[in-house]
Amino acid sequence: MKVSAIITLKKDVLDPQGKVIHQALDGMGFENISEVRQGKYFEIDVNENDPNKAKAVVEEMCKKLLANLVIENFKIIETQ
Amino acid sequence: MKVSAIITLKKDVLDPQGKVIHQALDGMGFENISEVRQGKYFEIDVNENDPNKAKAVVEEMCKKLLANLVIENFKIIETQ
Repeated sequence: MKVSAIITLKKDVLDPQGKVIHQALDGMGFENISEVRQGKYFEIDVNENDPNKAKAVVEEMCKKLLANLVIENFKIIETQ
Repeated sequence: MKVSAIITLKKDVLDPQGKVIHQALDGMGFENISEVRQGKYFEIDVNENDPNKAKAVVEEMCKKLLANLVIENFKIIETQ
């Protein structure tokens, strides 16, 4: 089954990339925005039918490789 | 309100970055994976209280700047 992981910078960590996107959107006429933050998204197809086990595997992956827990948070979402 | 946009490569588009992550995970002992695909994630704080209007604004942003519709799909998610 497919499990998705969303990795975002922690609240207090500066996000210069998001800031640049914010400025670009502003310049295009989207002036109604107060903040843009960019994150990463992974869709992982695990050979595992139990949703809980699949999520546990992806959580392990986030902790060990995908996310930098010092500055990032992660969230696991069941996709299929 | 906060609206999130998830941008993923279309199914038929090769994802070399995802492939490398797959190999890295494989090398770390996660051998139970059949595919990894990487996408982008944006969390946009729009000054707009109507969820539908906020989503429509973010959809417009995806079409005009954030996503390359030739090779990418996008999905809008309400966060708060």
